[in-house]
Amino acid sequence: MASPALAKLGRRVRLGLIGGGGGALIGPVHRVAARLDECFDIVAGALSSNAEKALAEALRLGVPRGYPSVAAMIAGEAARPDGIDAVAIMTPNDSHHGYAAAALEAGLDVICDKPLTNDLASSLDLVARAKASRRLLCVTHNYSGYPMVREARAAIAAGEIGPLRVVHASYVQGSLGTRVEDNPEQISDRLRWRLDPARGGLSHVLGDIGTHVHQLVGYVAGRRIEAVLADVGSVIPGRTAHDTASVVVRLEGGARGALFVTKAATGAENALSIEAYGEAGGVSWNQAAANELRVMRNARPAEIRTRGLPTLHPLARAAARIPAGHPEAFFEAFANLYRDFAELVAARRTGAAPDPLAKSVPMAEDGADGLAFVEACIASTKLGKWVDVQRV
Amino acid sequence: MASPALAKLGRRVRLGLIGGGGGALIGPVHRVAARLDECFDIVAGALSSNAEKALAEALRLGVPRGYPSVAAMIAGEAARPDGIDAVAIMTPNDSHHGYAAAALEAGLDVICDKPLTNDLASSLDLVARAKASRRLLCVTHNYSGYPMVREARAAIAAGEIGPLRVVHASYVQGSLGTRVEDNPEQISDRLRWRLDPARGGLSHVLGDIGTHVHQLVGYVAGRRIEAVLADVGSVIPGRTAHDTASVVVRLEGGARGALFVTKAATGAENALSIEAYGEAGGVSWNQAAANELRVMRNARPAEIRTRGLPTLHPLARAAARIPAGHPEAFFEAFANLYRDFAELVAARRTGAAPDPLAKSVPMAEDGADGLAFVEACIASTKLGKWVDVQRV
Amino acid sequence: MASPALAKLGRRVRLGLIGGGGGALIGPVHRVAARLDECFDIVAGALSSNAEKALAEALRLGVPRGYPSVAAMIAGEAARPDGIDAVAIMTPNDSHHGYAAAALEAGLDVICDKPLTNDLASSLDLVARAKASRRLLCVTHNYSGYPMVREARAAIAAGEIGPLRVVHASYVQGSLGTRVEDNPEQISDRLRWRLDPARGGLSHVLGDIGTHVHQLVGYVAGRRIEAVLADVGSVIPGRTAHDTASVVVRLEGGARGALFVTKAATGAENALSIEAYGEAGGVSWNQAAANELRVMRNARPAEIRTRGLPTLHPLARAAARIPAGHPEAFFEAFANLYRDFAELVAARRTGAAPDPLAKSVPMAEDGADGLAFVEACIASTKLGKWVDVQRV
Amino acid sequence: MASPALAKLGRRVRLGLIGGGGGALIGPVHRVAARLDECFDIVAGALSSNAEKALAEALRLGVPRGYPSVAAMIAGEAARPDGIDAVAIMTPNDSHHGYAAAALEAGLDVICDKPLTNDLASSLDLVARAKASRRLLCVTHNYSGYPMVREARAAIAAGEIGPLRVVHASYVQGSLGTRVEDNPEQISDRLRWRLDPARGGLSHVLGDIGTHVHQLVGYVAGRRIEAVLADVGSVIPGRTAHDTASVVVRLEGGARGALFVTKAATGAENALSIEAYGEAGGVSWNQAAANELRVMRNARPAEIRTRGLPTLHPLARAAARIPAGHPEAFFEAFANLYRDFAELVAARRTGAAPDPLAKSVPMAEDGADGLAFVEACIASTKLGKWVDVQRV
Repeated sequence: MASPALAKLGRRVRLGLIGGGGGALIGPVHRVAARLDECFDIVAGALSSNAEKALAEALRLGVPRGYPSVAAMIAGEAARPDGIDAVAIMTPNDSHHGYAAAALEAGLDVICDKPLTNDLASSLDLVARAKASRRLLCVTHNYSGYPMVREARAAIAAGEIGPLRVVHASYVQGSLGTRVEDNPEQISDRLRWRLDPARGGLSHVLGDIGTHVHQLVGYVAGRRIEAVLADVGSVIPGRTAHDTASVVVRLEGGARGALFVTKAATGAENALSIEAYGEAGGVSWNQAAANELRVMRNARPAEIRTRGLPTLHPLARAAARIPAGHPEAFFEAFANLYRDFAELVAARRTGAAPDPLAKSVPMAEDGADGLAFVEACIASTKLGKWVDVQRV
Repeated sequence: MASPALAKLGRRVRLGLIGGGGGALIGPVHRVAARLDECFDIVAGALSSNAEKALAEALRLGVPRGYPSVAAMIAGEAARPDGIDAVAIMTPNDSHHGYAAAALEAGLDVICDKPLTNDLASSLDLVARAKASRRLLCVTHNYSGYPMVREARAAIAAGEIGPLRVVHASYVQGSLGTRVEDNPEQISDRLRWRLDPARGGLSHVLGDIGTHVHQLVGYVAGRRIEAVLADVGSVIPGRTAHDTASVVVRLEGGARGALFVTKAATGAENALSIEAYGEAGGVSWNQAAANELRVMRNARPAEIRTRGLPTLHPLARAAARIPAGHPEAFFEAFANLYRDFAELVAARRTGAAPDPLAKSVPMAEDGADGLAFVEACIASTKLGKWVDVQRV
Repeated sequence: MASPALAKLGRRVRLGLIGGGGGALIGPVHRVAARLDECFDIVAGALSSNAEKALAEALRLGVPRGYPSVAAMIAGEAARPDGIDAVAIMTPNDSHHGYAAAALEAGLDVICDKPLTNDLASSLDLVARAKASRRLLCVTHNYSGYPMVREARAAIAAGEIGPLRVVHASYVQGSLGTRVEDNPEQISDRLRWRLDPARGGLSHVLGDIGTHVHQLVGYVAGRRIEAVLADVGSVIPGRTAHDTASVVVRLEGGARGALFVTKAATGAENALSIEAYGEAGGVSWNQAAANELRVMRNARPAEIRTRGLPTLHPLARAAARIPAGHPEAFFEAFANLYRDFAELVAARRTGAAPDPLAKSVPMAEDGADGLAFVEACIASTKLGKWVDVQRV
Repeated sequence: MASPALAKLGRRVRLGLIGGGGGALIGPVHRVAARLDECFDIVAGALSSNAEKALAEALRLGVPRGYPSVAAMIAGEAARPDGIDAVAIMTPNDSHHGYAAAALEAGLDVICDKPLTNDLASSLDLVARAKASRRLLCVTHNYSGYPMVREARAAIAAGEIGPLRVVHASYVQGSLGTRVEDNPEQISDRLRWRLDPARGGLSHVLGDIGTHVHQLVGYVAGRRIEAVLADVGSVIPGRTAHDTASVVVRLEGGARGALFVTKAATGAENALSIEAYGEAGGVSWNQAAANELRVMRNARPAEIRTRGLPTLHPLARAAARIPAGHPEAFFEAFANLYRDFAELVAARRTGAAPDPLAKSVPMAEDGADGLAFVEACIASTKLGKWVDVQRV
């Protein structure tokens, strides 16, 4: 990626971490992603909601300026000439709104883990706050950072498959294939809060991975899901949290499709796939072979486009670091969102036009779209009929 | 397969063909399948509804006794001491009922292409006629003939994946990705009658390939789909025939899932896949790698079971002819249904107990189940809500 | 395939079987292959070298005219107006020469299992006899019957990958991964004679599967292997039979490559693959995904050509029976050789020009080439240096 | 990985870069790999052999202490209390020896790109120097950093496949499929020096990727290649640099195998694969599906072990950062070598016992082994016979 705005800024973006200490999985992922392309300096952090732990983790992880709380970090950094430009939020879902709102109010740009919040109203509030503050609020729907997902988006946007007609996607995990929640001493902290509706959201499966599928479909297809006919719930007797969702969808422009999302597929790992077809052809991608995109056309051999090929669309080419045949994966895809975010932050601060390719990164509106989808699916399940997805 | 009944019969089953002449695709498939394991002699045929063509085709294909009509064949063969034991029906859907009823009434066993008929009522009538006549009525839902599909069924029946929780299947074709029906001179005869509701059934996509998916799910999972929430229709502007169906399902015992079936996926060939998970593990199969079954368990490496391995369940072992690593495919899977049928015919005629493994072949009840599913999906689409699938 | 000669013949080719009774694996494969496309009537057979067993097997298998010996069959059939046109030989290697010679002398066309014989001299003798008798002698190097192998051949012949530069092929089996031969009561008859040099040939691994790889390379690349640098032997302590061969090769025109062939890869099934590259691109095929051919070009997406596509070369199109996405496999590939042979037999008998596509079927010269390769590899191993492969 | 020595060290390892500025591909890879796990601070660098450029690149890349030359960096850092602990060398091959020797002499630990040097003598000299100086000299044979390659090594070491019998590996690239060297203005700097024997080594293909395959085989199999029968050269008319090598190998303990390595496979990307079999089973890995290892056993289903599973051997488990199903790839594998190196550096400096898992990282002896292999292959090609590989 050309990164003209970062070049104009002439330094890395200074980032403060919110959360990510302790045993959290997603913390290291955010840190690696932020640092991978040397667009950020991680200079500050409030790494835990526990003040003592927050300071200890900053020391342990080598974060230069550790703070006991998010408020302290925002205040402390605001007082410095070299204070942070942005924060990265990687805390439990129910705290996203508060931290993001505080950071935006302090004039900071924000990159936040998904789902944006646990309900549509609070997500819309963040959309409004980001707009009012003229600050960035990105959401790490990281699967849209994969180069070949970006190739799929670009191919469809370029008309390669013609008018979109059908979409089919699935996200199949096995972590909740049995009632692990019955052994509270065994389940991890990060699973415990996720299964608690107050912290993890109304529908665990939809919030945790359903929003990924929803965003992936919209990102690739380039159009929104307008209405859903859903069955969301649990397939494990006695479980209250949602573990499985089947969703029939209609997209703007008339395409139809189905999404299948579950965490109760014992033995499955993290199987995410999408296929989309138009009148002229189709595309198919799955994360297990993330460096490939299958592009199909009627009565002709399929093409296997691979990350790194010079013939890819610019959006995909810019998302690859090393030549074709040298695979990139999860961390690099995540890092692509951070790189996009850095460029947009630099553009906002310098007034330079950002690399237009950075603009495909998911923003608050996309995050709010995800919550609109979640709420529509829940409503459809309750009513047993089609429900429109609220337009954000 | 041991085939004790065929051994007792001491000769091949004498088969008469109904349809399958001319340019039909499915005719050669039935003939190859019937002859592959040398269980049948194809001795008679009414190969076309046009008398002249029927006789010419018999000559061309080397069928010893050609007849100008089905009625003539049934009568003619009844008059011979070495007359046919059974008929194989491979004509357009709307004629299945009449031919099957006539054959059953004449005391013949029947193997019939799918869907059994075009509506539930006529299918139920055939179920009743088969029962009353004490004759066999098999339906060639051929995907259940694949050895590794049979391994999936046997593994689930043996409890290997524990109580079933989720099922996800899809059947994605591209032949109707554009309005080919607008060029009547270009489309094939076999497509033309399929798209005509009077001949091909109320819902083309559901009758033609949806019934395959429905049968595959029931065969593998060992339990029926009780209720559906469906969206069936066309995604191509101006088309009246159904080309796409998304179906949310609930199975007996509480499992849930989603089926996605389309013929409008331009560039797709014949992508059929199924995955099913229980509390102890899961299975996954797709036709493009038909010789493999992936068997998954929690936090353990997946197993790749391959056709021909000695460790397979008997149902799958009996369905393979050559060693592991020497692939079998579509014809051989189809032939497995014919071999099962031959054994059951021989058992009926000799009074011998058939090889119990032959009993998994789809029968009239399974075919009728498929039509119950089709009608439930259509009703659900119209009503926009859940509909129970009528129990056959 | 158009089969103009078969059309002119106006009947099926009458085939007599030599061997293939009892527990032999390859017998059913030949029978299925011969009958699959209805080009042959199997009317006679000498199904075992044991006279009593030969007659019993003919009865069991429904072969109309069983004979106690090959000589009896040849004589008996010669005396009939409707006697056999051709024989199919599926006996142990050491008997191929005698049976083939006798059949040719009797004016019969011959299709013979591979390797053609156990040494080059006897193979060359058969080449000479076939030529002198003006009869056909085909060899069932069945992997060249796969449609997508034929597409690879046709693509290279058409110049799609430019001047050939490198070839790499391997055939990896596991049946001799341990000293199974130490338990004579456990090993099958068909393995026992194969491991006996007097019956199975000087080098088991080369004769049994090395000749397949050699033929596959020549068939696909369209040029012969001129010289070899080989290491042939056993990797299992105490074994005398050869189980593994590594062969460095140079092809006419300057291409280089490596072949790796083993039966000592415990756990491998029947993994056969080939890749070939020229200055403009490459092709890659493996039997586990037999319905696909990967076609590569510099800095462009690979193409996945699939069996059944209308865009394939005629040689490949003619070798497919059913549409793309409906897989064909081992039996169908084998049957393609039989179909080619039938057309060539019909052409010889009628004087009609055969379908030119039938001419790619492996003939005696190809079989003899294989033995020249085997002997060169053995010589190279002994000498520890490059050895030229004798030109047949 | 537990990293007890790093914990005892209590800080990150301070690293100085040698090379890696400008347009070099491998520079960013080293930098990302070094920083990924936060084991290193990159505090100094001599980023180019051109003094001016070296300083400019340090500024551009944010390397705190830029130096105009390696000598200046070594001297400058030695004078600081917080000077570098180690250097990472990523310059053209012919400079490795000089830089590594200088760094070792200055008491620094070294991690060096592969091949270690361009000939065996200079590599052996570095082995001696590392030993004499009691400093570490690691070589970035990065493919041994893949978790599932480490699982293969651990599985074989644990006896899971029994006594090793056969090995087959290939590394197929397409970058030299045509005479790109004829357009000097078009080829990249990094290709130009590689094709110059004085700078890139006697045999381009062997030095550049052949040493990777050699190291991979030794790392996985746990035993060395003792003798080779090779054909190394160019398959492109008029080319002097080697582009293709076929190598028959014998390993200690009696296993045999074949290696095929080419850069002339037009259309291939970076296809690296290895399969190894013993009497009890086999393993198979290829980089295109780097997160999987296939483990085979006789007459049983293959296992697909995936990166992240809790059932993996500790060596493989320690090499994964995120859960199964979330793929890691090239950068992360490379980073695993850096993490190992950091732990060993910390152990050397603190006297703590390092995590024993860190000890599988390739060292100078492994690098020298690679050059012994290269020279044996060249000698074998010239002599046309078997050549022993010199024991390092």
